[in-house]
Amino acid sequence: MEIEVMKDILGENDTVASENAAFFAAKKIFVLNIMGSPGSGKTTLLERTLELLADKLRIGVIEGDLFTAKDAARIEKHGAPVVQINTAGGCHLNAAMIRKALGKMDTDNLDVIIIENVGNLVCPAEFNLGETAKAVVLSVTEGEDKPMKYPLMFKEAAAAVINKTDLLPYVNFDRAAAEHDIAVLNPGINIFGASCTAVEKDDGIEAWCMWIEENYRKVSENFSARQE
Amino acid sequence: MEIEVMKDILGENDTVASENAAFFAAKKIFVLNIMGSPGSGKTTLLERTLELLADKLRIGVIEGDLFTAKDAARIEKHGAPVVQINTAGGCHLNAAMIRKALGKMDTDNLDVIIIENVGNLVCPAEFNLGETAKAVVLSVTEGEDKPMKYPLMFKEAAAAVINKTDLLPYVNFDRAAAEHDIAVLNPGINIFGASCTAVEKDDGIEAWCMWIEENYRKVSENFSARQE
Repeated sequence: MEIEVMKDILGENDTVASENAAFFAAKKIFVLNIMGSPGSGKTTLLERTLELLADKLRIGVIEGDLFTAKDAARIEKHGAPVVQINTAGGCHLNAAMIRKALGKMDTDNLDVIIIENVGNLVCPAEFNLGETAKAVVLSVTEGEDKPMKYPLMFKEAAAAVINKTDLLPYVNFDRAAAEHDIAVLNPGINIFGASCTAVEKDDGIEAWCMWIEENYRKVSENFSARQE
Repeated sequence: MEIEVMKDILGENDTVASENAAFFAAKKIFVLNIMGSPGSGKTTLLERTLELLADKLRIGVIEGDLFTAKDAARIEKHGAPVVQINTAGGCHLNAAMIRKALGKMDTDNLDVIIIENVGNLVCPAEFNLGETAKAVVLSVTEGEDKPMKYPLMFKEAAAAVINKTDLLPYVNFDRAAAEHDIAVLNPGINIFGASCTAVEKDDGIEAWCMWIEENYRKVSENFSARQE
């Protein structure tokens, strides 16, 4: 019975997620749902991404947190339109929260929406938001054992970012083992390195930004193709 | 209706948690539920704690993970009795899982049981296991904003460990701000520093171990007092 209730909740979420997905397709917006542990560096990665793509894409941001608007305040400094969702203790975003946030965004003038989910390596992977793609951020400080210990998020993601690579000299992190395990869980995944605080050593962040650009182009072209 | 079902689940959990708590009191075992993000360093802290307390306390360990027995294998090397719980995707331990694990432990010959919860800064705080005390581990790599963003766990904990302090020179982490916020959320909390990989710079780990010893003594004495 408890399981049935859970199914109902997930079923209802999937319905709203499908509606969100149809909305994004109609507006030809590439929507990326970024997930990862608290402190994996999602917000800093997002700030760096906004800087690098500022002249190329019009990016809006939806920030998910249990409490506070700290992350939205950081994003706002980069000039990107941002909506903060507070889940009031909830451990993940759901599709209805995203639908509500969209009402506060000028979606006619956006190419990309990046959703920063609640910091949690477990629950957000279970709730589809209607996004075009999911990405997972793993900090090298978390340890290379995390993909196998928290496999669902790595299975669901189209991209994985190995973050804070500037800290590799100071931590025990077997990067090859982490990348191997991620590829075993999800053979089609794109894996990028990133170092967002050390500007001189950006690692794979430009490739990551190009991946976002390419995905936007695909979404945009698919729409054009359907229109003909 | 969904909320009522949630209440029922929590109510059922609380009943089993109370039974666990009565069992621990009768056996005069101090039970510590350690929580924190994936990669905050819970297992390494636990390994260091086992080393330092090996000659003083008989410590058993319950390891909680979604999948794998990687952590239990690490603990076993230290000679401590350990039971691995796999939640098969579940985002937290619950009281029934602990009760089941207890059946596999020689509880007549233990002074302390340390439970390492699933790596998750949100959900585990909502599920009482019958433990004597909760502790939260926060790595300096996670950022000083985390207590205010994930307040429940810091409110529930009797102790907070600021971990991986050896990485402070390489990250932006305002330790005073983190400790201030934790104390605002929970004025009675005990805050310890810890650096578990750099052996020469243990920071507050000895104080942390003394805190565990003191708590065991209290549990033991309370029992003796009730017996008279």
